[in-house]
Amino acid sequence: MNPNERFPISLGEAIFTLRAIRRFKNEPIDNEIIKDILLSATQAPSGGNSQPWHFLVIKDKKQKQEFAELYHQAWWAKRADQGIYKPEDIAENNKTTLSAMKLSDEIATAPAIILVCATAQGSGHMGSVIPAVQNLLLTARSLGIGGTITTLHPSVEGQVKSMFNMPENVQIVYCVPIGYPKGNFGPVQRKPLAEVTSLGVWGEPL
Amino acid sequence: MNPNERFPISLGEAIFTLRAIRRFKNEPIDNEIIKDILLSATQAPSGGNSQPWHFLVIKDKKQKQEFAELYHQAWWAKRADQGIYKPEDIAENNKTTLSAMKLSDEIATAPAIILVCATAQGSGHMGSVIPAVQNLLLTARSLGIGGTITTLHPSVEGQVKSMFNMPENVQIVYCVPIGYPKGNFGPVQRKPLAEVTSLGVWGEPL
Repeated sequence: MNPNERFPISLGEAIFTLRAIRRFKNEPIDNEIIKDILLSATQAPSGGNSQPWHFLVIKDKKQKQEFAELYHQAWWAKRADQGIYKPEDIAENNKTTLSAMKLSDEIATAPAIILVCATAQGSGHMGSVIPAVQNLLLTARSLGIGGTITTLHPSVEGQVKSMFNMPENVQIVYCVPIGYPKGNFGPVQRKPLAEVTSLGVWGEPL
Repeated sequence: MNPNERFPISLGEAIFTLRAIRRFKNEPIDNEIIKDILLSATQAPSGGNSQPWHFLVIKDKKQKQEFAELYHQAWWAKRADQGIYKPEDIAENNKTTLSAMKLSDEIATAPAIILVCATAQGSGHMGSVIPAVQNLLLTARSLGIGGTITTLHPSVEGQVKSMFNMPENVQIVYCVPIGYPKGNFGPVQRKPLAEVTSLGVWGEPL
């Protein structure tokens, strides 16, 4: 493959227009496209080149619906951990959380859901998998496909692992629904760079 | 800024030619270039858009030398955790580890060392910082600058935090030396995609 031709968008455009996409068109994604995206994901570095990643792709409608029930349960379990128990507990101006709540009702509408796993437990293995997820999202973006990083919750992990026949030692790091977006890619809201950088001593401007 | 013009390399070329660079030319990196790289890093997603990252850049020669002593100590402390106590304990064909060992002697030769921090403790915050590191490496790559992700060790963390006057709650996630490479960018060794992907059920081919 020649990746220059397959992923022709510039790096700058991919990075600066990558925003979370949580609403998807009803348009399938070909397995060959998913393979291209995952091949690109696996070019990422990992500790000692251990490559402890595994990507389980869910596309079957019935399987997505079964998973969606657990995803919904996990989403509200995470909220409960924060003292949020119902939609009315979420501030009206908290658009990210409201959009994530909507996704927790509708995740089965994503044409594909990718469970990003580490093949062993522990934060080191988790860390070794995450750069690949950023490659995944950037490459999807270059093909006009959006997605977002989400997590599950310990309360559903056993059931999810059992549903997909995952080996016991596997760690589900992220759940990434992907699809052609309803809505647009575009710039994101970020803190000013000066707030998050230092030169030499914490707080000294770069 | 127009990122399309500033980072003109294609996404595919950046991703497929990003390899760890651990030997650097004696050529400084301008602060404006480092800011561009970090601005690009901070476009990455984070949990609930929390952006819990802070990038502390070390460029001063004396400061780099002081830090290098702790880095060397940390590198061997990590090896000791694995039962490796001296260079002769490392297999001759383990090129990644031998190259990392060399970096542990020479990290002060990197024109810049970036301590990638999370502003709070915990694996969730760590996870929210890592996608930005992949953006950082890809953007550096697009500008002809290489680097590699390394970690410190709990045994030196207190001293490092004190050296740079970091607030107590800060978590040092990664130490990323960057510079213009001695040697070349190029493709990496990865497991076949079929080994690390499944469709629907763990082990079923995609």
